[in-house]
Amino acid sequence: MSLLASITGPRDLDALTPAQLEQLAQEVRDFLIENVARTGGHLGPNLGVVELTIALHRVFDSPNDPFVFDTGHQSYVHKLLTGRQDFSGLRSRGGLAGYPQRSESVHDVVESSHASSSLSWADGISRALNRTGRTDRHVVAVVGDGALTGGMTWEALNNISDDNERNLVIVVNDNGRSYAPTIGGMARYLNRVRTTEGYENLRRGSDSFFRKLGPAGRAVYRGVRGGTHGFLSRFSNNAALYSNLDIKYLGPIDGHDLPVLEETLRLAKAYGAPVIVHVITEKGQGYEPARNDEADQFHAVGKIDPVTGEPLGGGGGTAWTDVFSDALVEAGEQRDDLIAVTAAMLRPTGLQPFAQRFPDRVYDVGIAEQHAVASAAGLAFGGLHPVVAIYATFMNRAFDQVMMDVALHRAGVTFVLDRSGVTGPDGPSHHGVWDLAMLQLVPGIRIAAPRDEARLREEFAEAIAIDDAPTVVRFPKGNVAADQPAIERLDDGVDVLWRHGEQDVLLVGIGPMTRLAIEVAERLRAQGIGATVIDPRWVVPVQPSVVSLAAAHRLVITIEDGIRVGGVGTRVRQVLREAGVDTAVDELGLPDEFLNHATREQILDDAGLSAAKIAHDVVAQVLGTRIPVARPSADTGAIWTVGAPDGEPQER
Amino acid sequence: MSLLASITGPRDLDALTPAQLEQLAQEVRDFLIENVARTGGHLGPNLGVVELTIALHRVFDSPNDPFVFDTGHQSYVHKLLTGRQDFSGLRSRGGLAGYPQRSESVHDVVESSHASSSLSWADGISRALNRTGRTDRHVVAVVGDGALTGGMTWEALNNISDDNERNLVIVVNDNGRSYAPTIGGMARYLNRVRTTEGYENLRRGSDSFFRKLGPAGRAVYRGVRGGTHGFLSRFSNNAALYSNLDIKYLGPIDGHDLPVLEETLRLAKAYGAPVIVHVITEKGQGYEPARNDEADQFHAVGKIDPVTGEPLGGGGGTAWTDVFSDALVEAGEQRDDLIAVTAAMLRPTGLQPFAQRFPDRVYDVGIAEQHAVASAAGLAFGGLHPVVAIYATFMNRAFDQVMMDVALHRAGVTFVLDRSGVTGPDGPSHHGVWDLAMLQLVPGIRIAAPRDEARLREEFAEAIAIDDAPTVVRFPKGNVAADQPAIERLDDGVDVLWRHGEQDVLLVGIGPMTRLAIEVAERLRAQGIGATVIDPRWVVPVQPSVVSLAAAHRLVITIEDGIRVGGVGTRVRQVLREAGVDTAVDELGLPDEFLNHATREQILDDAGLSAAKIAHDVVAQVLGTRIPVARPSADTGAIWTVGAPDGEPQER
Repeated sequence: MSLLASITGPRDLDALTPAQLEQLAQEVRDFLIENVARTGGHLGPNLGVVELTIALHRVFDSPNDPFVFDTGHQSYVHKLLTGRQDFSGLRSRGGLAGYPQRSESVHDVVESSHASSSLSWADGISRALNRTGRTDRHVVAVVGDGALTGGMTWEALNNISDDNERNLVIVVNDNGRSYAPTIGGMARYLNRVRTTEGYENLRRGSDSFFRKLGPAGRAVYRGVRGGTHGFLSRFSNNAALYSNLDIKYLGPIDGHDLPVLEETLRLAKAYGAPVIVHVITEKGQGYEPARNDEADQFHAVGKIDPVTGEPLGGGGGTAWTDVFSDALVEAGEQRDDLIAVTAAMLRPTGLQPFAQRFPDRVYDVGIAEQHAVASAAGLAFGGLHPVVAIYATFMNRAFDQVMMDVALHRAGVTFVLDRSGVTGPDGPSHHGVWDLAMLQLVPGIRIAAPRDEARLREEFAEAIAIDDAPTVVRFPKGNVAADQPAIERLDDGVDVLWRHGEQDVLLVGIGPMTRLAIEVAERLRAQGIGATVIDPRWVVPVQPSVVSLAAAHRLVITIEDGIRVGGVGTRVRQVLREAGVDTAVDELGLPDEFLNHATREQILDDAGLSAAKIAHDVVAQVLGTRIPVARPSADTGAIWTVGAPDGEPQER
Repeated sequence: MSLLASITGPRDLDALTPAQLEQLAQEVRDFLIENVARTGGHLGPNLGVVELTIALHRVFDSPNDPFVFDTGHQSYVHKLLTGRQDFSGLRSRGGLAGYPQRSESVHDVVESSHASSSLSWADGISRALNRTGRTDRHVVAVVGDGALTGGMTWEALNNISDDNERNLVIVVNDNGRSYAPTIGGMARYLNRVRTTEGYENLRRGSDSFFRKLGPAGRAVYRGVRGGTHGFLSRFSNNAALYSNLDIKYLGPIDGHDLPVLEETLRLAKAYGAPVIVHVITEKGQGYEPARNDEADQFHAVGKIDPVTGEPLGGGGGTAWTDVFSDALVEAGEQRDDLIAVTAAMLRPTGLQPFAQRFPDRVYDVGIAEQHAVASAAGLAFGGLHPVVAIYATFMNRAFDQVMMDVALHRAGVTFVLDRSGVTGPDGPSHHGVWDLAMLQLVPGIRIAAPRDEARLREEFAEAIAIDDAPTVVRFPKGNVAADQPAIERLDDGVDVLWRHGEQDVLLVGIGPMTRLAIEVAERLRAQGIGATVIDPRWVVPVQPSVVSLAAAHRLVITIEDGIRVGGVGTRVRQVLREAGVDTAVDELGLPDEFLNHATREQILDDAGLSAAKIAHDVVAQVLGTRIPVARPSADTGAIWTVGAPDGEPQER
């Protein structure tokens, strides 16, 4: 039996010898490579925190000492040490989540994958522990250097610094990267710290160096409790991180050296006030294919060959991201004023080719969506047209800035939202299901949802041509399917994709949901019910021909891969009623709940967004009494129907 | 003619002598006191920036050098110096806005009143100026110390520090306060700087001191261009602000000393890279009643006696805020675990009495809504029940945190949103019209909108009793009107406020809009149309009896003082349709646009939210052909109506 298999909980670590701990670290690393190669997942970040996580669980007593992992994708080692060693279903339905999840373990606290929140949580928890007399507990936050570029961490540190009477340990896991190398003055500062002589000594000296220095260091450290720099001054010539906030600071130390980590964390634990422990780690540590990956050190991988790190199978097809990527470069060639903005996700959002072609026309602002959006308003004021490329779920961070900085000032900024709709394996905080409902609240905004590659290209071109309002182009994760040509493009740009029989049911497919709408139409045809399928292309504002077509049909079904509550379906219906069109409308979308990890197909199916379910419900309505379908053979008498949207109601 | 009256634009300042500039400052101050006393407005902040604004317009060339005021309520002096001296209609319809407004002047850039965004704007604008070859231009951002507690400034500074090749001057207007004294480690640091010997010398030496030192200082400053601390090292022993970001720093200097200000700003202008100018000002400077006001130095006043500063007339009545304030203290007496959180607005949100009663149970987190909400999730995890009191408009800043930190973790956090709905004179960015639409997107959330004092008390009590979901209690600005007793409280807590005649029209009034609903009902009665008025009390989720009542009526009108698009009306209608209830629904609310400053009444009236307009439209529908009202005398034949929500559609 391996050492790892014998670990059923953190306290099993207590009895291990230093040599056994080193062996455990190796076993964990081997386990991660072998298992994540099979399922895909966040390999690089977890390889970087093997020793750190072991040391944390040795020194602190989870769950009495709550651990808060920022972003959470680096919690695999934590899962292994807290009794979760079946990784076979990682990120699949029924299997382990890719992030901490309270339903899995009492050792998990924060489930969200949105960065930079850990210090706020730690601030709140430690204040609560204090107020409720649990002053022997410690709160441990593990935050990456990338996450420190997010403003929430500044807000939290400002508060943490305000109240020194509590046990709060902030581990800065500094690997110099978020996805890509961390940017800004903060990163420059950290880089300087990493390359100082003191830290180099530590690395070279490794275990022996720190052990010798340990007791002396501890004495010094106690001596300077009242001072501002604490331990640090013995190790390097750097000012402490956040010197103006006056938070105690230990480090930097080698995050792959178990004895050094333990020693330092024990010092931090004994301190009795908030303290930052600055730990230098390497993403992908111990796995050459990851270390050698310049893009993102295997930040998140699909299935790979565990030996070579080469992707296995799959592949093929063109990703939505790549289409955008290509369209952006093309547009950049045409327009000098087009620039790209990303929040620490140059490659994942497809900006890399643009960055290579136009290196001075891309701004990576760090994990700082608020700044990405507000600074884009400034760029637009200065005469440029920014394209802000971001994952849909992270857009929630910048709602206020889209509203107050961009829309209020009628700034021509184009938001390109990747991973919109149901994303799948990353779970509740990664689904991009709120973008449509949230962004349609913004006055003057225009939202496009392309259904295929050709539409992404044309709608992106239309979006960047608008210079006096925010525009949004949103598309899902994964590969674009085959182009769905229109039967007819109406004057206002609405595409008719399908038409058969009487004008019974109008199916309005939003973006990739047009495919589902056509499958529904096929089933309706089999039941003798007429249907028309349209893609409005521009979802907000509602296009005039959506209204006139709705008026001509008996039932309207809108299908969006966003939440149903407050979704764009509600807007279609509202515009219809305003126009005097009382055709019944069913807005289909995702339910009002957080959606667990599973495949996109499983989640859509559960939500009733399948052709069989939708067609069944429509048939029941149309053949039942609820929708008065006028048929020559079944005249129901004085049914009130409506004419064209601008016309008067009329009897037929 | 006064000197002030002779200033038609900033360049008129160029010819003034030092003595004339001092005279101008005095005239501006007199003007502000006299005029703002008449109209109300942000008096204290503007009195604090008289000399600073004059010096900025002397040294920089607006609009070629764009000025960005953070928060914008301190732009009155800027307005006076840029040709806007008719303050008679300040913050009234047709009069000057209380914030910068592009439609008023080319000198205005950012209109939003949400704090901490100025540095992001400045970052964007300066990058754009550079890219478009306008390298002779300067961008000037004026940001308060309070706004520096907001995370956006950190995100922006991290980026500003990343690119040194541009002309960007950041003026930190440090008065030690936002509304209340600024909190946190940042404030402690600034306070230490303010009280250093160097700054005290500057203050004492005043004009003569700095003038003597000026040229020398300039030389030193030029000498250390490559260094890290710049000018500062000559003046004090403090490390520079944001030393880890390595941004050049000048100061601190006396913000009421014109020659010192000009000299320093000229140095900053000549620097050719981003530079922080740290200016110490006093809110309310030159006006004893403001200086002596410990609460907030006349941050924002109503009409006052210009000599004594005493409020004039008005008054009387009980504000919504005061009712909440009282209810919170009462609840605090009952429950030890209840704690309050504010984002730098202890008094405006009514937390002051609670803070006095329970000083260790209030957390002022600074202007940091994101942290307020995420740390509240941590407090709840730690076993407490946080009440986060915030203005509705600022809630937009923390949408992601309500979603990902509170709701995803089923944290029992109560949000109390003051100034929800149409607020009036503060203009587009201060209206709280998005809260309902935005927050109803959050899974599991519960939203209450009290209609009167009694309901605020009871709904707040109900909210804090819920410990496993976010709860919201939202109410408007101003005074509560007289209690509106219910005719009947239904089993699920829905109040029936009015009932007459047939069950023709169901009016669903949200919060204070119940009053309008009753006025509509009165008019309908006069037309022989039956009506029922209900207050659902808990707006989200939709209560069962709203559904059953809707089923029994012919037309449902929902009235909310939030935006109509995506509003809670759309949810009512969605729930009805889900339940098989096809009664027509009109969702009334505010239009999909930004609402300018005016009175609440004017704005509601413009939006068609008046009894006359609503009743007129309802009558037209009901007596027209659109709504099939079944009357014994006017049987329209085979009209399909519906039964109880759980029943089958039936013919009648």
